[in-house]
Amino acid sequence: MQNALAVTRAGDFAAWYQAVVDQADLAEESGVRGCMIIRPWGYGVWQRMQELLDRRFRDSGHENCYFPLFIPLSYIAREAEHVEGFAKEMAVVTHHRLKMIDGVLKPDPDAKLEEPLVVRPTSETVIGAAFHRWVRSHRDLPLLLNQWANVVRWEMRPRLFLRTSEFLWQEGHTAHASAQEAREETARMLEVYRCFAEEVLAMPVIAGEKPAHERFPGADNTYSIEAMMQDGKALQAGTAHYLGTNFAEAQSIRFQTEAGDLAFAHTTSWGVSTRLVGGVVMTHGDDDGLRLPPIVAPRQIVLIPMLRDKPEDAGVLEFCEALAAQLNTVQAFGEPVRALVDKKHGRAIDKRWAWIKRGVPLICDIGARDVASGNVTYIRRDQLRSDEKILSQALPRAQFIEQVATLLAGVHSALHQAAQQRMADNIRSDLGSFAALAAYFGQAANPDGDEDAAVSEFRGWAKVPWARPEGAALAKVEQQLKGLKLTVRNAPLAQDPITDQRCIFSGEPAREFVLVGRSY
Amino acid sequence: MQNALAVTRAGDFAAWYQAVVDQADLAEESGVRGCMIIRPWGYGVWQRMQELLDRRFRDSGHENCYFPLFIPLSYIAREAEHVEGFAKEMAVVTHHRLKMIDGVLKPDPDAKLEEPLVVRPTSETVIGAAFHRWVRSHRDLPLLLNQWANVVRWEMRPRLFLRTSEFLWQEGHTAHASAQEAREETARMLEVYRCFAEEVLAMPVIAGEKPAHERFPGADNTYSIEAMMQDGKALQAGTAHYLGTNFAEAQSIRFQTEAGDLAFAHTTSWGVSTRLVGGVVMTHGDDDGLRLPPIVAPRQIVLIPMLRDKPEDAGVLEFCEALAAQLNTVQAFGEPVRALVDKKHGRAIDKRWAWIKRGVPLICDIGARDVASGNVTYIRRDQLRSDEKILSQALPRAQFIEQVATLLAGVHSALHQAAQQRMADNIRSDLGSFAALAAYFGQAANPDGDEDAAVSEFRGWAKVPWARPEGAALAKVEQQLKGLKLTVRNAPLAQDPITDQRCIFSGEPAREFVLVGRSY
Repeated sequence: MQNALAVTRAGDFAAWYQAVVDQADLAEESGVRGCMIIRPWGYGVWQRMQELLDRRFRDSGHENCYFPLFIPLSYIAREAEHVEGFAKEMAVVTHHRLKMIDGVLKPDPDAKLEEPLVVRPTSETVIGAAFHRWVRSHRDLPLLLNQWANVVRWEMRPRLFLRTSEFLWQEGHTAHASAQEAREETARMLEVYRCFAEEVLAMPVIAGEKPAHERFPGADNTYSIEAMMQDGKALQAGTAHYLGTNFAEAQSIRFQTEAGDLAFAHTTSWGVSTRLVGGVVMTHGDDDGLRLPPIVAPRQIVLIPMLRDKPEDAGVLEFCEALAAQLNTVQAFGEPVRALVDKKHGRAIDKRWAWIKRGVPLICDIGARDVASGNVTYIRRDQLRSDEKILSQALPRAQFIEQVATLLAGVHSALHQAAQQRMADNIRSDLGSFAALAAYFGQAANPDGDEDAAVSEFRGWAKVPWARPEGAALAKVEQQLKGLKLTVRNAPLAQDPITDQRCIFSGEPAREFVLVGRSY
Repeated sequence: MQNALAVTRAGDFAAWYQAVVDQADLAEESGVRGCMIIRPWGYGVWQRMQELLDRRFRDSGHENCYFPLFIPLSYIAREAEHVEGFAKEMAVVTHHRLKMIDGVLKPDPDAKLEEPLVVRPTSETVIGAAFHRWVRSHRDLPLLLNQWANVVRWEMRPRLFLRTSEFLWQEGHTAHASAQEAREETARMLEVYRCFAEEVLAMPVIAGEKPAHERFPGADNTYSIEAMMQDGKALQAGTAHYLGTNFAEAQSIRFQTEAGDLAFAHTTSWGVSTRLVGGVVMTHGDDDGLRLPPIVAPRQIVLIPMLRDKPEDAGVLEFCEALAAQLNTVQAFGEPVRALVDKKHGRAIDKRWAWIKRGVPLICDIGARDVASGNVTYIRRDQLRSDEKILSQALPRAQFIEQVATLLAGVHSALHQAAQQRMADNIRSDLGSFAALAAYFGQAANPDGDEDAAVSEFRGWAKVPWARPEGAALAKVEQQLKGLKLTVRNAPLAQDPITDQRCIFSGEPAREFVLVGRSY
């Protein structure tokens, strides 16, 4: 039996991704370079993520607020590394009015801004300026804030959700009296992300520290969670930064300590974005489209009435409505179930495939026969086929209602386990030298060609010992890896002490393992 | 007994507003011209509004989505009236990169955009371009979308929440097969806003149609809800537009009808913004600060433990925590109560006043005596004083918990009734001529002076008969009113038929009453 999508993951992963995003109604190109339109189904997934993350931020003591979209150039200029890291990709506002000039709408030359404004690529600088005003005494600390916002980083090669010029995200910003507290906060929020990825998105991730050259511009330490996509590439799915006193010094965020001295605050920032939606697609999707982890599925169950323009139709609709209403009173994952009756115009079979492509966890076709028998026939999206046929299962209505939470939990853990297994199976830890690494990854590499074509073969990641090189030695490693289109993803947290191993780059005694792979 | 704020409403309303926004920790200037920082307490109020509006939009069949921040100039240029109405106040992005030039960070001349982008002032044009792609058949209609977003309209005289260059809002955009359906949608959403204002914000409003010259640029009809602030000025608190086929024609949003013809879709748009937070301040605030309607109060009850560095302190804290936990299990307005124990460092009396200024509906000081007696002493923010003294009331603990939902409902209706009374008492319907109108409003008018100074005297609104003038006649009315710093707010909906009355401007037979007043 043919798959719902015209392209397969094995055939062309990039085209498959594009097809899922399109066919699942997640997002589309907007006609505005690098900016996407997030369609209702895709936005629904993001809104679920927002809701559940927001609760976790609140529960860990953070408050939401909102800072300006525009940042004066002079703010950006204050933190040198930050300028270096971000200055290349910002949208710059230079005028505040348009004018019709010779019949053409143009920026009004009389309305040029004295100081250009950049559209925030991230808000450390503008939030730091506020922290400067708000922080006076150790009693004002810790300051634990978060904002949900859009940010802009100009992208020359945009891809929906993964790399867009405008994206939606949350950015947490905190200030603390001590380095230790700030480090604890950084670790706490990384752990919030890790749990969220695993428990909510069913997306296994590895939490670790980024190497020096991959740090956020201006950070002392950057930590990430990395997920393995189905093409073996890594997706950086969330980051948390310990900023030390770098931003505090640049923006004079100082406080009076208990002892009465003046000290710089230690700050952190952390964020996840709409990129997570792309991560869900590439972690769970199959050749029939999206498969959504039930907790973030805008609808967890869709009931499709099979209508035949016959008198029985009224009974079928009534059955569906009553069943949906009952399902919606059941709790799953600590919340009411979200069931929908799809009453739109169209053939039931077309609707079924539309919902399969959109990844709804449970899909029920309800016909007159089901009404008569009192059964509910359902498809589990994660177990779509059996022997090349669509696998329909049936339960008496009361039992279906009783078991629906268990069924949804089953979908979640099946998705999670499959992804977990894939990741575990595809981290090579036997590549003991750079030559071995190059031989393994080099086969698929093609430094001059198109990036996507070059990585069509699945390679996964490698876990290799390294000596934490710095400066020129690090730059050399970066270059070596670049030739293979690889990057260091992170050094996983809580590693066992490493002994008797040598860095595969420098030959020096290794200090830890790092993960190496291709990435988005 | 002195008030908590240094300025009073009667003394200087504009300064009072500023003081409430500041002292209640709602928002502050950001240092970026015209852009505000929404502080956690203010953002909490907005987030409550979002949550409750979002539910109403969903319940009326709308789906959320997200469209780009940037709009190409050519999109804006398509709808002529729209250009005319918005072109004067937009932020224009002209470059996509910065560069260090002679040690100064500047827009990179090599990264000039071929076509400048404007930061959306509203999204009809960019959403219309998507509707053009999405609408093919009558079966695709109605299309019922909403987005939560930030928008930018350059403001020369910004005021926090009321007029800011960047603000947060929601914009609904819908497309329909017939004018009637689109008109019904417009009316439905206006009614959603009206109910929301009254039932959630306790803010009485009058729903009506805007006169022709106050229409949204490109709309056939614009409707608004207007609220009376405590200085007698009107605040336009929400708008809904029937756009006819104007945008559909400009952007080719066409569909095949059931009969097989091609027809233009009828579109609508509607929005409310963070301006509502300013409306809540000016509707309910008093000389001691903010008074929040309980449904949007981020915290409805704050418990302040009165600690004395004595052994009893532990018992007081325990009592507070247990009480808050119990209160949070009670339902009020269909949701769990939101109670907080304020354990921050500081004197209980200072905390009490901080929460009074922030407008928490119920504030409880809990001391060792309360613990011993098992009573809860509370202040109702809407009944703060009696005979110049702070009015504390007490209830046995069990009774307080039992009655808390009723108490909160009482705060809501007291706020609503007071505002309702004020509005009803201050709409003059006896000004039967323009001379009478001018005499009444002219006393306070001072066309050459500062706008705010000119309206320090409370005047309220006038309800006057008019003949719906058009063209030059309308322009003349606009001028006449401008001299008195007045505008036509709207023509209230569902008026009784008008007979025997003459338009106070033209002397022609009146067709309806309109509300006239000063406004924000």
